Amino acid sequence: MKISIIGVGLLGGSFALGLKSIEDHHQFVGVDISDENAFIAMKLGIVDEIMSFEKAVKSSDLVVLSTPVDVIKDLLPKTLDILPEESMVIDLGSTKRDFSKAVKHHPKRDQYISCHPMAGTENSGPEAAFKGLLKHKQMIVCEKEASRKEMLRIIVSLFKKLDMQISYMSGEEHDRHIAYVSHLSHISSFALGLTVLDKEKDEKSIFAMAGSGFSSTVRLAKSSPDMWAPIFTQNSKNISVALEAYIKQLQQFKEIIDAGAEDRSHRLMEKANEIRRVLMGIEKD
Amino acid sequence: MKISIIGVGLLGGSFALGLKSIEDHHQFVGVDISDENAFIAMKLGIVDEIMSFEKAVKSSDLVVLSTPVDVIKDLLPKTLDILPEESMVIDLGSTKRDFSKAVKHHPKRDQYISCHPMAGTENSGPEAAFKGLLKHKQMIVCEKEASRKEMLRIIVSLFKKLDMQISYMSGEEHDRHIAYVSHLSHISSFALGLTVLDKEKDEKSIFAMAGSGFSSTVRLAKSSPDMWAPIFTQNSKNISVALEAYIKQLQQFKEIIDAGAEDRSHRLMEKANEIRRVLMGIEKD
Repeated sequence: MKISIIGVGLLGGSFALGLKSIEDHHQFVGVDISDENAFIAMKLGIVDEIMSFEKAVKSSDLVVLSTPVDVIKDLLPKTLDILPEESMVIDLGSTKRDFSKAVKHHPKRDQYISCHPMAGTENSGPEAAFKGLLKHKQMIVCEKEASRKEMLRIIVSLFKKLDMQISYMSGEEHDRHIAYVSHLSHISSFALGLTVLDKEKDEKSIFAMAGSGFSSTVRLAKSSPDMWAPIFTQNSKNISVALEAYIKQLQQFKEIIDAGAEDRSHRLMEKANEIRRVLMGIEKD
Repeated sequence: MKISIIGVGLLGGSFALGLKSIEDHHQFVGVDISDENAFIAMKLGIVDEIMSFEKAVKSSDLVVLSTPVDVIKDLLPKTLDILPEESMVIDLGSTKRDFSKAVKHHPKRDQYISCHPMAGTENSGPEAAFKGLLKHKQMIVCEKEASRKEMLRIIVSLFKKLDMQISYMSGEEHDRHIAYVSHLSHISSFALGLTVLDKEKDEKSIFAMAGSGFSSTVRLAKSSPDMWAPIFTQNSKNISVALEAYIKQLQQFKEIIDAGAEDRSHRLMEKANEIRRVLMGIEKD
């Protein structure tokens, strides 16, 4: 297949490298708004050639949209407009509902398969890509009934070759759940980073004591604003509900700590310890 | 030296295992409120024998208090009361100001060295202990001028043998900083765990999509309530200030997201990205 990666960053690049490492008959085309990224992606062997968006889409069997989600929303209908009849387009964005809406009535809607791999790191750009990123990870496929059956079958078999597990759901359900298990984690981390950076103005040496616990909770604050700002916009309603619930939990902790109610904070933490069950599941994967 | 570990859990156990691995002439005594933990610590070779608190303290060259901080606060004056004239006591607790206050006027105050290793995991108990936990980590020593010089020298040289870096500060400064770079991280994680566990009641499959980002931010929610509830009590004032600042940052994010002000969320995240500088320092260690 001729496969175009539109946005050769962490996800698109890792998808290409992963597929290259198991099948050598595909040809990879890179499209990127940044000439530098495109050049690096070539140099790193992620893609074999660089093209313009239009030329790439028109000549591809598979188009992979792996840009920030605001760009996906804009490019998805444009891709379908010029996509050959027997070619497919997938996206790897962290939101889903808006894309489905954007092409709901497009005559070529069935050539689009809506995908979100539950994989990533806090790094971005082609240098951050590596062939094992998607291995053993979940791939969420949304609105599968809207995609052409034969195309869905081909795409799912590609993901399985990458050792991914496939789950199916609606775009609505995806966006509601992802607000809690991904988008909220990122905001909690960004806000934690800002809180301590702000305190550093008065207490110069505050980070001298930071260790692995701090590092773990604040790691996601390194994530790319270009990628995350449009995610927050597209999933704002679900994120707002999740954030409100999170702030309430924190206010509860604050009240309990202010009141010196050690029994109550103990009980709250016992409840939170139930997360062990969940984390065991994730670490097992 | 004969060294008593009062509370043979993650920290006390790792201190013993670390020291044993580089010097084999010490004799380790275990004291634990749980007979099971004491037995396991013996079986794992963390300590060589088990004794009662009183017998252990009276026969030791060095007493290490590594219990939850409410127990340290209670045991520290009792330890000094019966500690031989030429013996030393250190604690490894996550708060410092209350301990200094508790023994400020004790006639044997100078036999106490107030210590906090910036090391830990979300696990607890003797099974969680391992010899490398303290290696290359920070050891904060507080109120060093209140300790007998010769004893301080011996203890610091022990920490250096364990490849630790030593920092000195007041108990007040320690507690103010640690609220931001450790205690707040734990609360953010406990609250995040509670938020998503609570949502799970309505959305059964919500954790199916959780990945490494979620896992990283919520990992500390596995931490022991027995250990953390008394930390929150002893450092409540500093934690309350830090939590208030954190909640304000989250409210700011929520307002911006509700308003769809993508430029402002972008700028906030750019500021948060500055945390890279801090994390590079931690990861380098």
